[in-house]
Amino acid sequence: MKFTLSHKDPESKARAGELVTDRGTIQTPMFMPVGTQASVKAVSQADLAQRVKAQIILANTYHLFLRPGLEVISKAGGIHKFINWQLPMLTDSGGYQVFSLSEIRKIKEEGVSFRSHLDGSKIFFSPEIATDIQRTIGADIFMAFDECPPYPCEHKYAKESMHLTHRWLMRCINRFNETEPLYGFEQSLFPIVQGSVYKDLRLESARFIADQDMQGNAIGGLSVGEPLEQMYEMTERVCEILPVEKPRYLMGVGTPANILECIALGIDMFDCVMPTRNARHGFIFTSRGIINIKNEKWKFDNTPLDDLFTPEYSKAYVKHLIKCNEMLGATIASIQNLSFYLWLVNEARAHIIEGDFMNWKKNILPVIMVKL
Amino acid sequence: MKFTLSHKDPESKARAGELVTDRGTIQTPMFMPVGTQASVKAVSQADLAQRVKAQIILANTYHLFLRPGLEVISKAGGIHKFINWQLPMLTDSGGYQVFSLSEIRKIKEEGVSFRSHLDGSKIFFSPEIATDIQRTIGADIFMAFDECPPYPCEHKYAKESMHLTHRWLMRCINRFNETEPLYGFEQSLFPIVQGSVYKDLRLESARFIADQDMQGNAIGGLSVGEPLEQMYEMTERVCEILPVEKPRYLMGVGTPANILECIALGIDMFDCVMPTRNARHGFIFTSRGIINIKNEKWKFDNTPLDDLFTPEYSKAYVKHLIKCNEMLGATIASIQNLSFYLWLVNEARAHIIEGDFMNWKKNILPVIMVKL
Repeated sequence: MKFTLSHKDPESKARAGELVTDRGTIQTPMFMPVGTQASVKAVSQADLAQRVKAQIILANTYHLFLRPGLEVISKAGGIHKFINWQLPMLTDSGGYQVFSLSEIRKIKEEGVSFRSHLDGSKIFFSPEIATDIQRTIGADIFMAFDECPPYPCEHKYAKESMHLTHRWLMRCINRFNETEPLYGFEQSLFPIVQGSVYKDLRLESARFIADQDMQGNAIGGLSVGEPLEQMYEMTERVCEILPVEKPRYLMGVGTPANILECIALGIDMFDCVMPTRNARHGFIFTSRGIINIKNEKWKFDNTPLDDLFTPEYSKAYVKHLIKCNEMLGATIASIQNLSFYLWLVNEARAHIIEGDFMNWKKNILPVIMVKL
Repeated sequence: MKFTLSHKDPESKARAGELVTDRGTIQTPMFMPVGTQASVKAVSQADLAQRVKAQIILANTYHLFLRPGLEVISKAGGIHKFINWQLPMLTDSGGYQVFSLSEIRKIKEEGVSFRSHLDGSKIFFSPEIATDIQRTIGADIFMAFDECPPYPCEHKYAKESMHLTHRWLMRCINRFNETEPLYGFEQSLFPIVQGSVYKDLRLESARFIADQDMQGNAIGGLSVGEPLEQMYEMTERVCEILPVEKPRYLMGVGTPANILECIALGIDMFDCVMPTRNARHGFIFTSRGIINIKNEKWKFDNTPLDDLFTPEYSKAYVKHLIKCNEMLGATIASIQNLSFYLWLVNEARAHIIEGDFMNWKKNILPVIMVKL
């Protein structure tokens, strides 16, 4: 993996770059659609590549471990072959899901014992196991196994949790260094900055993570319920410490506005279920503003859902499909929302290169965030 | 609409022809995917046209009347513009759904009073109303309003019902003749032969329907639970009476084997929810036999779901998607099953033209109906 920064915005910390992997180049800033269970919900791989123009997609280690299981993925020759996706992929470590989906869990130094949210069966994840699993899955980028503390969270807990995450990181890196990719493509391990909303912890964590000198760095534990200002402040402080020449990935963020603001703070990579989840509920991001397609006002509106991304389907038709729970409604809305997100980060990139990013951001935000 | 028979099979009643409509030519024998609520479930219009190669699709008058309602379709400029589908469409009259979905209904000479299966609201359909509704929807072919008697059904009831259907047909034809298409494309009205499984009634009904000299004729009330032999016998008897030079549409049929057998009896057009409904439950028709993708035997099978139609997705992946209830699983399986159905009728057509249809049918049936 090779990351090259080509442009820096003169008025902010925004940057444009290229992340070259064995499976293709990711132009940053970039948004990564989330394919939790080895499928970006309701969207085919062909539509992801050709319509949405996704350059990298995510999958989820915890979910893949449960279904289809490692043996299936291994025998398929890795996740890319299993799902027929030739471009880069990223897996998260499963840490977040262990803490968010599993009600019964026990955290020890060695790792986490928890029960499957599907059938209650006992599972144990450790930094070594999470690393081995992600070797078997075979994503181009994979994440260190961390504890993602809840919000709100006392300083004491956040501090201990962060130190545990740091110790786990060292074990992840050791295991990563001891092992090789299984399918002939390079894999990179990204460590994760934690520390909840505490500036001192975030700074300490960012320094620790930066010191590991991995190929890219991530910020976790944000967008979990904290006020927006705190999310931006933590991101800003951490970005000041994380090395300039490495890609920075802000996990699980966020709204279109969140993404533009965090690009301005120096973030290069984003992922979020929002575009696909909102789509299934009829909340549509368009180049002209936000639409709740279930609203009666769209009933007779035969103009395209969005001229740019879904010119062939009218608002009235998509409203009908979503109302009737027809799968095609979820598909059209998901393609629309993801296309919009990819368009947004590509536009941001173009304006960083152009040199007018902050001015463009100021002008575009009221347009895209207005409720139609 | 113009129907031209080009080839007749020397060893059966099978025929190959072309049905030319204002919106395109339908090569017969043809299978028509069902888009009940203005969407063929889980499949986009682009995939229907380009991958499945559908030449005509169905929509359902009863469902469209309830949602999105006639005003929406009218203001969109008809069903084709509403859903963005340029090729021919067919609507059924709603008769079948009135009798199958609505628990409370009252049949009188004038028409049928029933309650919406969605909200219980009172609705009244008559032959005139069903005709007007189908003018508003704007399909290229639409169906007479009939009573579809249940199976089993006493001879007395079947006879009275058939006569009611015939009287209703005359009213449909009168209304059809008094009215004009609304969107600038010709519409054709197909009458429906009824008579349950009674040969005398089917013959009487077929003669009555044939006498109306409409542009095409349909056979309804079969594949509703009667033994297969009776379905084939009724179809055969009716086909002997329906005019040779008009297209014959067997409604709601059926399995791949049913379709090939009924092509041999002289049927030109078919529709059925089986390919899409089965797909969503993981029952896959392939060019090599039938697959229950939920079966454990496919867990590690990385060969394509079907080399011909879905070469890019493995059985193992589709099994995973269907098991996890991922929408993409329904989409892939539906594209596969519909592509198979369209391939099957196109192959049948090619072999009718070739002159070896019966021999081909004998050889292909054991291949495609074997359980893998």
